[in-house]
Amino acid sequence: MEVGVLGASGYAGSELVRLLLDHPAVTAVRCFSSSHAGEPVGRSLPGLAGFDGRFEPWQEAALEGLDVVFTSLPAGEAVPILSAARAAGVAAVDVGSDLRLAAVDYPTWYGYDHPEPTLLQDAVYGLPELWEEAVRRARLVANPGCYPTAVLLALAPLAREGLLPASVQVSATSGHSGAGRTPRAASHLPAAVENVQPYAFPGHRHVPEMERYLARLAGRPVQVSFLPQLVPASRGILAAAFIPAPPGWTQAGVTDAYRSFYQARPFVRVLDDELPQTAWVRGSNRCDVAARLDPRTGTIACLAALDNLVKGAAGQAIQNMNLMVGLEEAAGLPRFAPAA
Amino acid sequence: MEVGVLGASGYAGSELVRLLLDHPAVTAVRCFSSSHAGEPVGRSLPGLAGFDGRFEPWQEAALEGLDVVFTSLPAGEAVPILSAARAAGVAAVDVGSDLRLAAVDYPTWYGYDHPEPTLLQDAVYGLPELWEEAVRRARLVANPGCYPTAVLLALAPLAREGLLPASVQVSATSGHSGAGRTPRAASHLPAAVENVQPYAFPGHRHVPEMERYLARLAGRPVQVSFLPQLVPASRGILAAAFIPAPPGWTQAGVTDAYRSFYQARPFVRVLDDELPQTAWVRGSNRCDVAARLDPRTGTIACLAALDNLVKGAAGQAIQNMNLMVGLEEAAGLPRFAPAA
Amino acid sequence: MEVGVLGASGYAGSELVRLLLDHPAVTAVRCFSSSHAGEPVGRSLPGLAGFDGRFEPWQEAALEGLDVVFTSLPAGEAVPILSAARAAGVAAVDVGSDLRLAAVDYPTWYGYDHPEPTLLQDAVYGLPELWEEAVRRARLVANPGCYPTAVLLALAPLAREGLLPASVQVSATSGHSGAGRTPRAASHLPAAVENVQPYAFPGHRHVPEMERYLARLAGRPVQVSFLPQLVPASRGILAAAFIPAPPGWTQAGVTDAYRSFYQARPFVRVLDDELPQTAWVRGSNRCDVAARLDPRTGTIACLAALDNLVKGAAGQAIQNMNLMVGLEEAAGLPRFAPAA
Amino acid sequence: MEVGVLGASGYAGSELVRLLLDHPAVTAVRCFSSSHAGEPVGRSLPGLAGFDGRFEPWQEAALEGLDVVFTSLPAGEAVPILSAARAAGVAAVDVGSDLRLAAVDYPTWYGYDHPEPTLLQDAVYGLPELWEEAVRRARLVANPGCYPTAVLLALAPLAREGLLPASVQVSATSGHSGAGRTPRAASHLPAAVENVQPYAFPGHRHVPEMERYLARLAGRPVQVSFLPQLVPASRGILAAAFIPAPPGWTQAGVTDAYRSFYQARPFVRVLDDELPQTAWVRGSNRCDVAARLDPRTGTIACLAALDNLVKGAAGQAIQNMNLMVGLEEAAGLPRFAPAA
Repeated sequence: MEVGVLGASGYAGSELVRLLLDHPAVTAVRCFSSSHAGEPVGRSLPGLAGFDGRFEPWQEAALEGLDVVFTSLPAGEAVPILSAARAAGVAAVDVGSDLRLAAVDYPTWYGYDHPEPTLLQDAVYGLPELWEEAVRRARLVANPGCYPTAVLLALAPLAREGLLPASVQVSATSGHSGAGRTPRAASHLPAAVENVQPYAFPGHRHVPEMERYLARLAGRPVQVSFLPQLVPASRGILAAAFIPAPPGWTQAGVTDAYRSFYQARPFVRVLDDELPQTAWVRGSNRCDVAARLDPRTGTIACLAALDNLVKGAAGQAIQNMNLMVGLEEAAGLPRFAPAA
Repeated sequence: MEVGVLGASGYAGSELVRLLLDHPAVTAVRCFSSSHAGEPVGRSLPGLAGFDGRFEPWQEAALEGLDVVFTSLPAGEAVPILSAARAAGVAAVDVGSDLRLAAVDYPTWYGYDHPEPTLLQDAVYGLPELWEEAVRRARLVANPGCYPTAVLLALAPLAREGLLPASVQVSATSGHSGAGRTPRAASHLPAAVENVQPYAFPGHRHVPEMERYLARLAGRPVQVSFLPQLVPASRGILAAAFIPAPPGWTQAGVTDAYRSFYQARPFVRVLDDELPQTAWVRGSNRCDVAARLDPRTGTIACLAALDNLVKGAAGQAIQNMNLMVGLEEAAGLPRFAPAA
Repeated sequence: MEVGVLGASGYAGSELVRLLLDHPAVTAVRCFSSSHAGEPVGRSLPGLAGFDGRFEPWQEAALEGLDVVFTSLPAGEAVPILSAARAAGVAAVDVGSDLRLAAVDYPTWYGYDHPEPTLLQDAVYGLPELWEEAVRRARLVANPGCYPTAVLLALAPLAREGLLPASVQVSATSGHSGAGRTPRAASHLPAAVENVQPYAFPGHRHVPEMERYLARLAGRPVQVSFLPQLVPASRGILAAAFIPAPPGWTQAGVTDAYRSFYQARPFVRVLDDELPQTAWVRGSNRCDVAARLDPRTGTIACLAALDNLVKGAAGQAIQNMNLMVGLEEAAGLPRFAPAA
Repeated sequence: MEVGVLGASGYAGSELVRLLLDHPAVTAVRCFSSSHAGEPVGRSLPGLAGFDGRFEPWQEAALEGLDVVFTSLPAGEAVPILSAARAAGVAAVDVGSDLRLAAVDYPTWYGYDHPEPTLLQDAVYGLPELWEEAVRRARLVANPGCYPTAVLLALAPLAREGLLPASVQVSATSGHSGAGRTPRAASHLPAAVENVQPYAFPGHRHVPEMERYLARLAGRPVQVSFLPQLVPASRGILAAAFIPAPPGWTQAGVTDAYRSFYQARPFVRVLDDELPQTAWVRGSNRCDVAARLDPRTGTIACLAALDNLVKGAAGQAIQNMNLMVGLEEAAGLPRFAPAA
């Protein structure tokens, strides 16, 4: 199987390349990057030294040789490629934001009209733990954002049961890799180390995505207030929401609901008597979730931890690819995290 | 003025020593430590090399020469010292947990009866931004916990206006120094770096302190669900709570309320159009707060950032001392944080 | 192929387990740990959750079912196991220090006589880039220390040419995982972050290993002064030595010598016009080396970067296993490092 | 005393401002910055919030009101200001590189001729531990570079005794703040955390400074090979050089030589039986040094640790100011480092 990655020089894109190079069903990985075209991949990405590929400039003709194309590009830039892939019948996963929302959301949250709304109708939201069957049948997948993946997995079992309030408050911490590879003041090490930086409240662009798919789970509108915070780490997201416990619920009941909801899902682990930590899933495609009841206040803390570049981006994109092409869901995906 | 610090070899205690050594009104700092008695202070604490003091074993007779005594000891251990200080008429600030709660809270949250409840009646809660006059008249001060300081300062303006709901949810991040100087698995660098670690939910011991003083502000009971999280940093707390905005409130109204509440307080800064960051207050006694309204959801994010060892411990203890002995509130306290 | 790991709960041991679980030729991984016997592996090592193994207490009878045994134990403790493996004809790799030195070194550097010196005679030093053929024929391998691996790979091309002076000075930085999983003051996050900590000078126990194998390469004695330094990271070693350039040598000549020395070695990369960085090899089994000439002073800086838990421990142990059992050298080993 | 800081928005400049604001003899601090002119200082530097100064554009007329001017500017840019200060008789300290070298060095190391070489003749090299008397008489001071300060203090006692070899090799680690406040790829947190990055070998611009002043101490030329390395921290330099021990020297003799050399210097501490760590001097103006003999190899490791923004920049500049204007050397300078 030959695959292509657009935006292969960024963090999500290069993580895709790294994982795809070791995928048992992938025979060739082509790397596209407008900014690095012509350069050996291992030059710009020394971690991939030993891989002898070069960045290529994108051209539509490349679709012919590809079985799957991944786009990891700034907002709006993937649209023409996805459109061409659809026309050519090539399976496509957009790791960016060009397929995740309804057409009506783009003017509000991105400041422009979506240039090709029919793509949105054809696209499937690629969170396999929630909508696996749709992904299996899809040719066009919207890979979820890193924060929405964590928030949706933390809340889905309650949402499906109709137990979410109409307005949900979420705080989350993230490593800096989520903000991309371009140096900027907030991620300059002397300013970022020994610092916790809340940002983008109100108005983070992942909010409409959370609201859209929580609503799909709940069967009615859900509003989200979302406070993201950068912590001095490269990777990892920890999302936390507090939900009022339904009357009569116990810790055992909550945990059972989560366990049965995620039964047999290879990449979600429900914790019993521990709280998730980002290091426990670092480098893996796993998301650890816990729902912990405070019996005194009747509040459930719903937590999820994942690696924003794996389960929150590249790993999930491959998980989607696996399902789309009929491979085993876990093929080529890292299951384990190191202890240090 | 001669002062003594018990538990001077710990993080809060040694920070007290460091700041007191440069305090303009302090002529001598005596350092007490049972575990390091006899040792030069600069040996165990190389940052204080150049200070020629030695750790002394505590004995009550030492009270005679002291104007103020600070206790920074494990739960329960300060009680006899505080009792002796009261008897001797020596001003005392307990940086630990032996004076913060009501007698009824100790069995529930600490598992023992408070051995001398009359101390609790005589003690004043030393959060000068909220109860300055009481501190000025006090001889026995309960220095607030690091998390409660942040949470109370983040919420006080709304609490005093009666705008808190009966149940409040708070998430907070903290550097590892808050957990003390003893090595332990959660703070072992390979496990702690690149990791966000929620812990002690439900049941963190700072909860009854938050509830007690929020209730005092609000004039009625307030329940707190509290999710603390360790992030890979040494210092800094960022606390966040979401509160429903009262109908008709605007961002300008919220900010005005905070500004007028904290007017003329030297150590609280109300942010306008930014969100607090822990690095901005690192090493200083300042607490930055912001209340940011999400107009779409009608939710206010109430945030506070402080340095857990300064405004959250040693600095606030000195601020209390200053008020108790009639000095200027800010005497000897660091106002500024470095840029890197 | 069934393999066993003793000391499987430590950092090197658990990294071995993690990598072996994804090794294509390994069908079963048995985990032995005296301190965690009986516990599910994924409980003590949450990164391995999903692996259903349990820690077993070691007993010699276990050797029967094993094709290869790895020992990752404190000094001296592997001797009886290695001895039993030899007797049983089971291939063994000691990741600790029980096979690396000559018998005469143990009293001097470890303070005891080696309890079974014939093991030392049978053991092969497992640095495949230097002594591959010996490893292929070995049944008992001494896996090199993390620092010696870096130092030997940095200096080997010059050493083999007879270009090392009789006394070599090396400084190196390391992440804290090299010091193991047990919490201790030097690795307590608040003391370790924002800190560079030189230690064990003079007298680090890796010195006799460096001297022994540099001498083997050089054909004459080499003395090493070695200054290790902990930096605030979990993983990574960067070793640096300054060597006087032979008269007439140019940068091109030095680089050519290194390139030709390491030609066709899958896990050593010689850098041309860059200096090695530890992040570029993080998580991979690669060692990046460079020899950079300062033409003004006639000094060559010889540098090597590796991941102390992979090429410096677990990865190299698997590389040795692969060669011992006739697999491809790179089987099951991570080639690439992530960009973030 | 009124002082001015040019380049006040950078890391060294803003650290100067922070320390000068608490200096007992300084009544006003004026902040000059071309890039931030007009802005409140506390806006661009939130750590200084509460200080009500604004950045001003520089104009020569400002010299009239100033007693001392500090320049912390890119190479070459301080020359006209220093020249004007000299003409106006205002004491000046250049924290940049415009006064440190001989005229002949600028074309070689900076690629341009020094525009006003008479400044170099009038300037005094401001390393008070070595040339205090010259500083006391100076009106124009070259504040040493951060690395040279560490290297010179580590080696001076041996250099003065004529014990340096003609060619010295130095490796050093540094936090990222030394490279300034402008975001760049090497200091982008995801690339910089968990990474050790050697750079600028050969050819770092601090080399001619080290060589010039080591030669001044030694009374003959000294060549330096210098390998700087960035480690994942904001602050701190640890410099290490290996020097052959003179025949017959013992550890006690080496330590005595260092102790007697630095006797009564308030900001240098000679360590006995420990090695310096950067955290032990963090935020203080102290430099810790040690010379540790490896008796087996006859090599002395000469080590120095300092905070690059304090003793390596702003603190040392104030120390120089103190001496120039006749204040106590330690006035207004932080003596202690925190324990966490």
